[in-house]
Amino acid sequence: MSIRIGILGYGNLGRGVECAVKQNPDMELVAVFTRRPPEKVQILTSGAKVCTIAEIEDWKDKIDVLIICGGSATDLPEQTPKYAAMFNVVDSFDTHARIPEHFANVDEAAKASGKIGIISVGWDPGMFSLNRMYANAILPCGKDYTFWGKGVSQGHSDAIRRIAGVKDAKQYTIPVDSALDSVRKGENPELTTRQKHTRECFVVLEEGADAAAVEEAIKTMPNYFADYDTTVHFISQEELIREHSGIPHGGFVIRSGKTGWNEEHNHVIEYSLKLDSNPEFTASVIAAYARAAYRLAAEGQRGCKTVFDIAPAYLSLQSGEELRAHLL
Amino acid sequence: MSIRIGILGYGNLGRGVECAVKQNPDMELVAVFTRRPPEKVQILTSGAKVCTIAEIEDWKDKIDVLIICGGSATDLPEQTPKYAAMFNVVDSFDTHARIPEHFANVDEAAKASGKIGIISVGWDPGMFSLNRMYANAILPCGKDYTFWGKGVSQGHSDAIRRIAGVKDAKQYTIPVDSALDSVRKGENPELTTRQKHTRECFVVLEEGADAAAVEEAIKTMPNYFADYDTTVHFISQEELIREHSGIPHGGFVIRSGKTGWNEEHNHVIEYSLKLDSNPEFTASVIAAYARAAYRLAAEGQRGCKTVFDIAPAYLSLQSGEELRAHLL
Repeated sequence: MSIRIGILGYGNLGRGVECAVKQNPDMELVAVFTRRPPEKVQILTSGAKVCTIAEIEDWKDKIDVLIICGGSATDLPEQTPKYAAMFNVVDSFDTHARIPEHFANVDEAAKASGKIGIISVGWDPGMFSLNRMYANAILPCGKDYTFWGKGVSQGHSDAIRRIAGVKDAKQYTIPVDSALDSVRKGENPELTTRQKHTRECFVVLEEGADAAAVEEAIKTMPNYFADYDTTVHFISQEELIREHSGIPHGGFVIRSGKTGWNEEHNHVIEYSLKLDSNPEFTASVIAAYARAAYRLAAEGQRGCKTVFDIAPAYLSLQSGEELRAHLL
Repeated sequence: MSIRIGILGYGNLGRGVECAVKQNPDMELVAVFTRRPPEKVQILTSGAKVCTIAEIEDWKDKIDVLIICGGSATDLPEQTPKYAAMFNVVDSFDTHARIPEHFANVDEAAKASGKIGIISVGWDPGMFSLNRMYANAILPCGKDYTFWGKGVSQGHSDAIRRIAGVKDAKQYTIPVDSALDSVRKGENPELTTRQKHTRECFVVLEEGADAAAVEEAIKTMPNYFADYDTTVHFISQEELIREHSGIPHGGFVIRSGKTGWNEEHNHVIEYSLKLDSNPEFTASVIAAYARAAYRLAAEGQRGCKTVFDIAPAYLSLQSGEELRAHLL
C-alpha cells in the first residue's frame, strides 16, 4: 500500500513536493489543500483532489502524512501544531532562532494526538544541519563554516523590490572563492561577513527612476547589503525574465579539525549542494522525511522530531538488507 | 560518569582511537588489549592499563564499549562476534562484500548477550555510506559516483613490496580531475576504471635490481594496476621516509540527480574528505559511534547496528535542546 500524501499550500514548494512524490514509487498524492478557490488551482497529478483548507478534517483517515508548505514567518508557527493534532506532518520551518519554540509547540500537539511531526526539513535547516552535526561529533576540535550560494535569495530580492523606482529585481548570494579556498586548505581563517559572501543584484527600473539613487539605496541598506560588497546591474524586464527566472541555490558546509595526540593532523570535511531549483530540492528532502514520518508513526512513536532524531534508514525505500549489501 | 573505553589491538587504528578518546571529554580510556607482551607496548594515556588479550573477560564490568581495531581479513570476522558476547563493541569492518555475513554473526552474538555491536564504522564504509544513502533517498532519479584519494592505499603499496627487487614502496590513488569535473557539472558520464583514478608509485629498489623489469611488473599487475594509468618513480629509502611517511587519504561521494515534473532540473550533492591521517580520522568516527553504542545499550537496545540504523543525535555530546538551538 502506498503512503498517502497530502499537501497544504500549493506554491513553489507545494508543486515541488508534488513532483517529488511522483518520483517515489511508494507514495501517492491524494489531496492538495489551498486557501484559494479550488477551481482556480490546477495541479499536475491526475487522480489527486484539490480541496479548500476548510475540508481538511474530513481527510483525517485518508492521508498518512500531511506536508505543510507554508511560509515560516506566519503560516508554519500556526499551521504545524494545528495540523499535528490531526495528521502526521512534515514542515520546512527555517527561522533558525525560533526552532526551539516551534519544536515545543509541535511536540505538545503531536504527543497529545499520537502523531509524528517532523520540522525544519530541507537543506538549511536540514541536510546542512545534519552535516554540521556529524562533522562536529567526529572532529570535536575544529571550526565550522557555512557558505551559501551561488543562489537566489528571495528575501534580498524582495528588499530591493520595495525600493522606490524599482519595478523588479533578483539578488544572487555568492560565496567568495578565496575564503572557500582558505577554509578548504585547513587554514581556519576568521572571516567577516564581507569576506564570506558577495551580493549581485539585477534590477529593472520603473520608467524615469534615478538609477544612481536606487543603487545607493541598495548598497547602503542595513542588514541586507551594507555589510557586503554589492554589485548592481540595471537590465530590462525582458532580460530579467529570460536570464534570471530560475531559483537556483546551494552552498557549502565545511568543518576543519585536528586529530592526533598533539593535534598534529588536519582534516577537512566538506558537504556541498549545487541546486537548479531550491524549492524542488527542498521538496525532495521533505518527501524522504515523509517516508520516515509514516514509518515512525507505524511503530507507535509520537511527538516532534528533527533530522537529528531520525535514523538514516527510515528515509530509504530500500530494506536494511539491501542497504547493507549495496550502499554500506 | 565517563564512558569507559577499551581498545583491542594497538596498531595505527588503536593509537588513533586513543587520541580520539582524549578529545572527547565524556570518554575515558581504561585498558588496551594486545596480543604482544604488554610490557612491550607503550601507550600514551596515563592511568590506562595494557593487558594481554587473555585477561579481557575480567574487564566485562569495567568497560562500557570495546573498540576492536583488528584487520578485516581475518581478525574482525572472528573477534567482533566473539567479544559482542561480553561487551558493547564497535569495529571498522571494511570488506564490503562480506558485510551481510558479518552483520548476521555480530547480530546473533549481541542479541544473545544483550549488547550492542556497531560494525563497519569509519569513512568508507561509514561516512561515505551515509552520504550515499541520504543522497539516494533525496534524489531517487540519479547516479552515484565515489572517487578515492588522493591517498595512500596500503593494499597497493603491499602489492608492490611483494615484487622481487623492491625494497620498499608507497602507492597513491589519485582521482582524475576531468572525471570529477564532469560529474560535478551533472553530465552523468559513464566512467571506466581507468577514467576515474590514476595510480602513482614511489619505489625503493634493492641494490642491483632491474628498474625496467620492476616497472613492467607493477604496471601489468592484474586487478591492482593493469586497468589504470600508473606512474612509477624510483627514489631512495631516505626520500621515501622523508616525503612519503604520512597516511593521508580522502575522496568524494557525489550524487547527481533530476527533479521536476519532467526531470527538468539538475542537482549535485557532494561530500568530500581531505584527511592528513586515514587511521586517526577513522578512529574519530569510531569514537563518536562508541558514544552511540553506550547510549543505545543504556536504553536497553541490543543487536547489530550500522551507521544507517543510528539517529545522528546519538553521536553528539550535545543534548537535543543544544543541537536544535545551535546546529539545526
